[in-house]
Amino acid sequence: MNKNYYCIIMAGGTGRRFWPYSRKELPKQFLDFFGTGKTMLRMSYERCEGLVAPENIYVTTHIDYTDIVKEILPELDEQQIITEEERRNTAPSLAYASHVIQKSNPDATILVIPSDQLILNVDNFKRAMLKGLDFASNSGKLINIGIKPTRPETGYGYIQIDDEERDGDFCKVKTFIEKPALEFAEVFVQGNEFYWNSGIFIWHVNTIMKAFHENMNDVCPDLECDTPNFSSCPNISIDYSIMEKANNVYLQICDFGWADIGTWQSLYDASPKDVNHNVILNSNSLLYGCNNNVILMPKDKLLVAEGLEDYIIAEHKNVLLICKKDNQSAIRKYVNDTEMKFGEDYV
Amino acid sequence: MNKNYYCIIMAGGTGRRFWPYSRKELPKQFLDFFGTGKTMLRMSYERCEGLVAPENIYVTTHIDYTDIVKEILPELDEQQIITEEERRNTAPSLAYASHVIQKSNPDATILVIPSDQLILNVDNFKRAMLKGLDFASNSGKLINIGIKPTRPETGYGYIQIDDEERDGDFCKVKTFIEKPALEFAEVFVQGNEFYWNSGIFIWHVNTIMKAFHENMNDVCPDLECDTPNFSSCPNISIDYSIMEKANNVYLQICDFGWADIGTWQSLYDASPKDVNHNVILNSNSLLYGCNNNVILMPKDKLLVAEGLEDYIIAEHKNVLLICKKDNQSAIRKYVNDTEMKFGEDYV
Repeated sequence: MNKNYYCIIMAGGTGRRFWPYSRKELPKQFLDFFGTGKTMLRMSYERCEGLVAPENIYVTTHIDYTDIVKEILPELDEQQIITEEERRNTAPSLAYASHVIQKSNPDATILVIPSDQLILNVDNFKRAMLKGLDFASNSGKLINIGIKPTRPETGYGYIQIDDEERDGDFCKVKTFIEKPALEFAEVFVQGNEFYWNSGIFIWHVNTIMKAFHENMNDVCPDLECDTPNFSSCPNISIDYSIMEKANNVYLQICDFGWADIGTWQSLYDASPKDVNHNVILNSNSLLYGCNNNVILMPKDKLLVAEGLEDYIIAEHKNVLLICKKDNQSAIRKYVNDTEMKFGEDYV
Repeated sequence: MNKNYYCIIMAGGTGRRFWPYSRKELPKQFLDFFGTGKTMLRMSYERCEGLVAPENIYVTTHIDYTDIVKEILPELDEQQIITEEERRNTAPSLAYASHVIQKSNPDATILVIPSDQLILNVDNFKRAMLKGLDFASNSGKLINIGIKPTRPETGYGYIQIDDEERDGDFCKVKTFIEKPALEFAEVFVQGNEFYWNSGIFIWHVNTIMKAFHENMNDVCPDLECDTPNFSSCPNISIDYSIMEKANNVYLQICDFGWADIGTWQSLYDASPKDVNHNVILNSNSLLYGCNNNVILMPKDKLLVAEGLEDYIIAEHKNVLLICKKDNQSAIRKYVNDTEMKFGEDYV
C-alpha cells in the first residue's frame, strides 16, 4: 500500500433534504439507511480500507458530530477526525483538511469522498481509485470522478468533457452543468460527452493547495494554521470555488454502481422497486393502488395506504412526512417551517 | 325523576370502520375521540344523568370489554353491566337487556342509545328524550328518534314518515331506507318526509318484548333466562328484525346536533374544519395544498403533508392508515388483509 495515499471522508452535512429521516442531531451519514447493519459513514470508511493505510484515513465533520464519528469509527485516532466549529461548506473544509495532511506528508495524494453515497461495486471502485491516485500523484491535475449517466437524472450535476484531450479514462473537463432541465438531461444520457459529477475527487496535496491559493487566497490564512477560523470563511463549495475555475481539472470516467443518496428522489432511483414501482425501505406496508412511492416507516409500524402516486411517505421519530416525490426542493421549506412553528425537536 | 324510566347504552361494537384508531382491543366508544378528556361512553352516560335514575342506567357490551366499562363508569353496579359472550348484533343484545329490565320493573320505559354518537346540544337531547319517554310509556308505540337531515348524507339510513298520521313530533313510520345513493339523499334533504335514523329508540318494555315475540319468537327462549345463549342467536340488527317489520313504529322528530360517528366520513362531516376543509383532530400538522382531509395523529407526532385531497390520515399505535375518505367500505378489507398478513396485533 502506497504510504503517500490519503483519504478524506466528508461527514459534516446536516442532510436536511432527507428529513424527517435525517435529523440535525443525527444526519443520514450516521444512519443505517439500507438496513445493512452499517451506517453510511462506516460503509464509506470500509470502502477505503486496503486502498489507503488506516492511519491515512481522515474524516471531516462538524464539532457536534465528533462523538458520533468516534463511536462509528473507533479505530480512528483523535487527529484523524478534523472538526469544524462552523459549517462553511466543502471548500473551507477541504482547504483546512488538505493543510493538515500537507503538514504531515507533503507528498500526499488524496482521495476525497462524501460519506453519504451508495457504491454497489466496491471492487471496481477500489481499482478505479487506485488508478486515479496514481494519475493524480504525478500529473499535477485535479481529478473529478465522473459517472456515465444511466438515466436522465435532473437531480445531479453534470460534467462535459473535451474528448480531444483524453488520456485513457482521463479527459480534460470542458464545463460543469448544474442540475439540468429534463430535456437537457435526456440529451446528456445519450452521448459520451456528459458525466454525472460524483463529488469524488483525487489530487496531490500540493496541486489542491496551489489551487486554493490561486482561487481563494484571501481565505487561506484563516485555514492554514493550527486553530482554523471557519467563521470568517465564505460558505462555498469546492465545485464552485475551485473545480469550475481551475484549468487543470480532469474527469476520470468510472463505473462502479454509484448513486448520490442526497435526496429522497435519488434514493428512490437507486433502490429496488416492487411491481408497482414503489420503493419500500425496511418497512411493513399494505398498499392498494399505490405507484412510484418511496416508503420508509419505523420497524414496528405498519403502513396501510391507498391511491398514492409519486409520494414520499417517511416517518421517523416524531415526524411523519407525506409529500410529492418530484417536489424535492419543497422539503427545505417544510423543515424550516417546522423548526419555526414546532421547534428544533422536530428537525 | 320517573323511577320507571331506564336507559340502555349499547357499547359492544368493535368499531372496525374506524380502524386504525378504533382497535379490537379498545374500540372507539372507549376512547376520548374529541380530546375532551372523556371517552364517548362516559359522554353517553353523562347524557342520561338527570334523565334516568343512576341505578336505571344499563350498559350492554361484550364480555371482553367488561373491565373497560367498569373503569370508565365506576359508578355502575355489577348488574348494570349486561355482558354478551358472543357478538350477535343489536337485536339479541336488546332482547336480553329488555328481559333483564322487565324482570326488575315490568313498568319500565327504556331509552336505548348507542355509545359512539356525538350530541352537541345535550339540553335539547334531554328535553326530547323526556318527551319521548312520556309518549312511549303510555302509547304502546316503538319510538325511533329521527333527525332532520342537514346535508345529503349517503352514509346514514333514512326513515320516511307518513305525514298524515302525525301527533306533534311523533309520526307514524312509512318505510326505512338503507344508505341511499347521492341522488336520492339530495331529494331527501329537501323535503320534510325523510329523516336520519339515529339508532336511538324509546319503548315501553312490554311493547318491545311483545315485538320480539312477534318477530323473532324462536330466539326468545335462549335470551329470556338468567344465562342467555347468544351463540345460538342469529347475527341480526334491531332495525332489520323489529323496526322495519313492526306496524306500531313511530318516529320522533328531534334536533339536538346529532352525528353518528360510525365512520371516518361521518366524523369528518361532524367536525369543525380549517380553511381548506381539513378536519384536524387533536393533531399537530403542517399542511401544504391539502384539502378535505381528516387527520388524526398521536399527540407527540407532527404530520407534514403536501398535496393530499379527500384522504384519511390516521395513525394510532402500530398502524398508519392513508386512504381515500370516500372509499370507506374499503377499510373493512384493509383490516381483514392486515389481520391475515400481519396478525391480530395490528387490528
